[in-house]
Amino acid sequence: MIRFESDYSEGAHPEILQRLLETNMEQTAGYGEDHYCQSAAARIKALCGREDADVHFLVGGTQANLTVISSMLRPHQGVISAATGHIFVHESGAIEATGHKVLPVESADGKLTSDQVRAVYEGHWRDATHEHMVQPGMVYISHPTENGTTYTKEELTALSGVCRECGLPLYMDGARLGYGLMSVGNTLELEDIATLCDVFYIGGTKAGALFGEAVVIVNPELKKDFRYLMKQRGGMLAKGRLLGLQFDTLFRDGLYLRMAAHAVEQAMRIKKALVSKGFSLLYDSHTNQQFPILSASDVDRLAGKYAFHLWQNMADGMKAIRFCSSWATRPEDVDELIRDIDAL
Amino acid sequence: MIRFESDYSEGAHPEILQRLLETNMEQTAGYGEDHYCQSAAARIKALCGREDADVHFLVGGTQANLTVISSMLRPHQGVISAATGHIFVHESGAIEATGHKVLPVESADGKLTSDQVRAVYEGHWRDATHEHMVQPGMVYISHPTENGTTYTKEELTALSGVCRECGLPLYMDGARLGYGLMSVGNTLELEDIATLCDVFYIGGTKAGALFGEAVVIVNPELKKDFRYLMKQRGGMLAKGRLLGLQFDTLFRDGLYLRMAAHAVEQAMRIKKALVSKGFSLLYDSHTNQQFPILSASDVDRLAGKYAFHLWQNMADGMKAIRFCSSWATRPEDVDELIRDIDAL
Amino acid sequence: MIRFESDYSEGAHPEILQRLLETNMEQTAGYGEDHYCQSAAARIKALCGREDADVHFLVGGTQANLTVISSMLRPHQGVISAATGHIFVHESGAIEATGHKVLPVESADGKLTSDQVRAVYEGHWRDATHEHMVQPGMVYISHPTENGTTYTKEELTALSGVCRECGLPLYMDGARLGYGLMSVGNTLELEDIATLCDVFYIGGTKAGALFGEAVVIVNPELKKDFRYLMKQRGGMLAKGRLLGLQFDTLFRDGLYLRMAAHAVEQAMRIKKALVSKGFSLLYDSHTNQQFPILSASDVDRLAGKYAFHLWQNMADGMKAIRFCSSWATRPEDVDELIRDIDAL
Amino acid sequence: MIRFESDYSEGAHPEILQRLLETNMEQTAGYGEDHYCQSAAARIKALCGREDADVHFLVGGTQANLTVISSMLRPHQGVISAATGHIFVHESGAIEATGHKVLPVESADGKLTSDQVRAVYEGHWRDATHEHMVQPGMVYISHPTENGTTYTKEELTALSGVCRECGLPLYMDGARLGYGLMSVGNTLELEDIATLCDVFYIGGTKAGALFGEAVVIVNPELKKDFRYLMKQRGGMLAKGRLLGLQFDTLFRDGLYLRMAAHAVEQAMRIKKALVSKGFSLLYDSHTNQQFPILSASDVDRLAGKYAFHLWQNMADGMKAIRFCSSWATRPEDVDELIRDIDAL
Repeated sequence: MIRFESDYSEGAHPEILQRLLETNMEQTAGYGEDHYCQSAAARIKALCGREDADVHFLVGGTQANLTVISSMLRPHQGVISAATGHIFVHESGAIEATGHKVLPVESADGKLTSDQVRAVYEGHWRDATHEHMVQPGMVYISHPTENGTTYTKEELTALSGVCRECGLPLYMDGARLGYGLMSVGNTLELEDIATLCDVFYIGGTKAGALFGEAVVIVNPELKKDFRYLMKQRGGMLAKGRLLGLQFDTLFRDGLYLRMAAHAVEQAMRIKKALVSKGFSLLYDSHTNQQFPILSASDVDRLAGKYAFHLWQNMADGMKAIRFCSSWATRPEDVDELIRDIDAL
Repeated sequence: MIRFESDYSEGAHPEILQRLLETNMEQTAGYGEDHYCQSAAARIKALCGREDADVHFLVGGTQANLTVISSMLRPHQGVISAATGHIFVHESGAIEATGHKVLPVESADGKLTSDQVRAVYEGHWRDATHEHMVQPGMVYISHPTENGTTYTKEELTALSGVCRECGLPLYMDGARLGYGLMSVGNTLELEDIATLCDVFYIGGTKAGALFGEAVVIVNPELKKDFRYLMKQRGGMLAKGRLLGLQFDTLFRDGLYLRMAAHAVEQAMRIKKALVSKGFSLLYDSHTNQQFPILSASDVDRLAGKYAFHLWQNMADGMKAIRFCSSWATRPEDVDELIRDIDAL
Repeated sequence: MIRFESDYSEGAHPEILQRLLETNMEQTAGYGEDHYCQSAAARIKALCGREDADVHFLVGGTQANLTVISSMLRPHQGVISAATGHIFVHESGAIEATGHKVLPVESADGKLTSDQVRAVYEGHWRDATHEHMVQPGMVYISHPTENGTTYTKEELTALSGVCRECGLPLYMDGARLGYGLMSVGNTLELEDIATLCDVFYIGGTKAGALFGEAVVIVNPELKKDFRYLMKQRGGMLAKGRLLGLQFDTLFRDGLYLRMAAHAVEQAMRIKKALVSKGFSLLYDSHTNQQFPILSASDVDRLAGKYAFHLWQNMADGMKAIRFCSSWATRPEDVDELIRDIDAL
Repeated sequence: MIRFESDYSEGAHPEILQRLLETNMEQTAGYGEDHYCQSAAARIKALCGREDADVHFLVGGTQANLTVISSMLRPHQGVISAATGHIFVHESGAIEATGHKVLPVESADGKLTSDQVRAVYEGHWRDATHEHMVQPGMVYISHPTENGTTYTKEELTALSGVCRECGLPLYMDGARLGYGLMSVGNTLELEDIATLCDVFYIGGTKAGALFGEAVVIVNPELKKDFRYLMKQRGGMLAKGRLLGLQFDTLFRDGLYLRMAAHAVEQAMRIKKALVSKGFSLLYDSHTNQQFPILSASDVDRLAGKYAFHLWQNMADGMKAIRFCSSWATRPEDVDELIRDIDAL
């Protein structure tokens, strides 16, 4: 079985394990106050061009989302999200469990537009009974989205502009941020993101680390007491150095982007094979996730040999599936998949 | 200005005030443990045909909804509701503030069908990642709905059947229950509701009381410790007798239903005038709320003389408005409205 | 049975009922946006000497406390309170249910001192692990306290000074505020309270209204969006005019203070009788609650004829009980109690 | 600097790292549904003598505590804990953030007695106003406690008996469970714990793992839907195998207990030196934490060479400090500490 199931099926890049081994017996302070966390934070701030940012390391994505979002809202406020957003669909009500409603906006491709955000905002304030409704308090986006799509610099600039006009802080879930930065035709650099968003996180779990997400808080008003909130929500790792060390390794000489580039390259090879063969794609993804629409019989033929995610049953009986590549994807496995696609 | 704006514009039926006066200097125990509460509860249980039910008196609808719903769910569970439901739209995130997601279902008329509930339930459990999603834990309906529509006995029986099959307790928000019981062609009696629902409330605020809602808990598993929850959520009135006395008055000789019948009768007169004149209705309501669709100029002509609620701007430039009658609606005011409708 | 059990055993002062009757058929806007609420708020602001304050009307004390406190804190913050405070002991965990810890401080008489607050604050920030502890975020006091004791102007000035120095907003629960204002030797006027506190409420339920508490927000930073929070917590009364009308009546010509003065006068008569007879008092209360310590047999002798609250079993087998007077206490009933005390 | 500061200063036991390396490129299912988690769970169930238990792996202790406790309580219930308990003092209000009060009980040594639990329970139900108070819903203990003290089999049996009598599920925080099992004179085995508690966790973070805690749910009523709650609270690790693999390694051939035995052995050597020298101990700990009381000057003399935790300033100017040993403590470092203690 060759697996294209997810980007978190293996452990971590060997360099990371190597450093864990080398530093294992070193004694450090706990709770993220060690020199590895400091070094990793310094690297991230430099890459973002924001020496003034705060960087915190959390273990996982749902934890990062719930901690960040609940730190940014007052009790009567909700968070605007695409209806396909991870926080609306796949976090078991983690945001609601902190007391806040997710305000969903329909989206064909997983992205929010500046017009949509403006419409939600203006719709709220125009309603005579708005005090009886959840007040939009911030905006959540993911980049790349759960559908593999990405924001252009122009799109994020427009979105950020509307957010600032409306007083809605903008938060980007970057669980797969590396794949966005390395996506084909990308125009959105880390510095742009740090300029346009108020808070974002750089995902490690789905990008070659054992685990870990680096939350970057740019907006000074949102920095206060974040470590209390991490502790309260169960997200302050005792051996915080494990997170610092991983991000230090990811960002000391470009490993993070190299791994993402590899994954995207392999995904593009698969995409090209699918398109050449005439298959439709559910979303036009330039990242490490590809969503071809196949007949049930083609799906069955591939299923014996490859693991992949069954994404959606289409109205006409066809099936959308997801192939996912990662730092660990072997080119020869992709060669084989391409041969089998050609043979469908 | 003649007001058809809402069913809570006046104080209370004079009989209620009269009894408040008569009993004012009596000393009673607090927190709902007085004999008026006992008497009112006994009357309600008898009318429901459920001597075994628990009856509690709360001050308002949002308070009743949040207290009941949060008492029925475990933290990872959500409540299925029509997307037009009061808890989803108009309670400022009260349910989410208790930690729970409202799971919205699109509905043209404000009602949920048994098929819709089954689909949500089965969809959840069929999804391979259901542990990452909010688990449906109960069903919320309103009767009449926010749109003035009502459930037939057949519909509620079907809905209740699916709920029991799926292990989803059924909760009915009866803020306007009286108008449902007195609606034209009604087939659903209080005893049916007490048989088919697990919990429901009989609304006082919008039905002639100063304030107050009587929560009826039928399902024995849901009774435990409800008074703690009332206290915790701020819903246990110190002078609970004020609630008991009102409901005792509403139910000792049929006042509750008489008032509702009056309101529905006046609404039906308005409806008939609208239909005769050829106006469309946004919803087919047999209760005290009517939703005609008028041209903007007709709306303007009425607006000078009558107060009503602007409900919805239609796609074609027409406007849906809401006329609301109550126990206090004067027939001569309705006469005048009918004349003005005829003259449009 | 003559009842000295509580100050909320009867309905309301007849003037209040009279006005409910007079205005019953008037149609008004809902949710506190009527002219009675406006008028009552204006009167309260004038009496406080704070035209810039916001005044909101809520139904009950627990509701007021949970709504105000949860509006003032961030998620990792707690509220400092005397360990005897209502929010720590008698609200079924209402504050915790909004996500916040109550930080208790031992107090012999129910009051907090400025030194105690400073000690909690400094203790927190001095602790090397303070990020692992609940951060003190505000201070809750009651005046009079649950024990009938009161703050002097000097004490409240000191407390307020420390609170402002430490950045801890000060909130006063005034469930029995009138009795404090009319207490023997009182030095603390409404204007002082409005100057020294950030938020406080003027209690109606225990002071002659049917129900209702008037929350006064003085600190501009704490005003924002309070109506959303009222709605979300179930505390926005549909017929808000019922609250406005009551407070308008209480404050239009001094009724509130007249009723409190009557209650305190009767309590002082009881106190004098107790002290003359040589009984100890658990707390030195100058308000409408008195806490004599009696032998079990004396308690039994009184219990046949009078209702009172059994407050505390003393270590030596004696019993502290509570006599409570109110606007409705009849002087002839107090005469009789005094005779029976003398005869013990 | 020789560090006796904490038991989580280093990485993990080399065997654990070795297995991470060996299995790194293996592809597994995510979210704890891999064969390493299954194997580790099977080993733990066997060691507990409870094949019917559920075992879940979480990343850290605060996360485990908040997830378990909030899964066990209804909204109006609180958790009884020693006032020194980690959940009451050092989790930034994590339990309150899930809506529940921690009900503290004073304890000289960090332990709860069966009498104390009974007193809290009976005190609650005897109080006439218990519906206005937080209902005790479960009991939290730590073993060893934060003070290094441990329960005997007899004590835990008594405590468990009272808990069952009172209908209060018993939860043990075993962050340092290994040190308890290997403590000098221990009478409480894993099988006893699994028989006497309803839920407990076996700590990895402070016992030689990189991170991770194994929650064992014995009581069948508490098992339902726990994985949803893990996900909702941010505690379901994407690469769950990292937890499974570590616990599989800890329990496949006794590594967990061997490491704990080593730590306790070194701590006992330190204890003996302290006692021989005539120093008092704040608590009588038979585990890996020792709390001697030294003069300020002795503390200063040691502080230049050793890292330790300043635990408490004593009333007489003396200082209680904490020495902590672990699997990584080198005997030669202890030799040196002993020499320096002797020389004080």
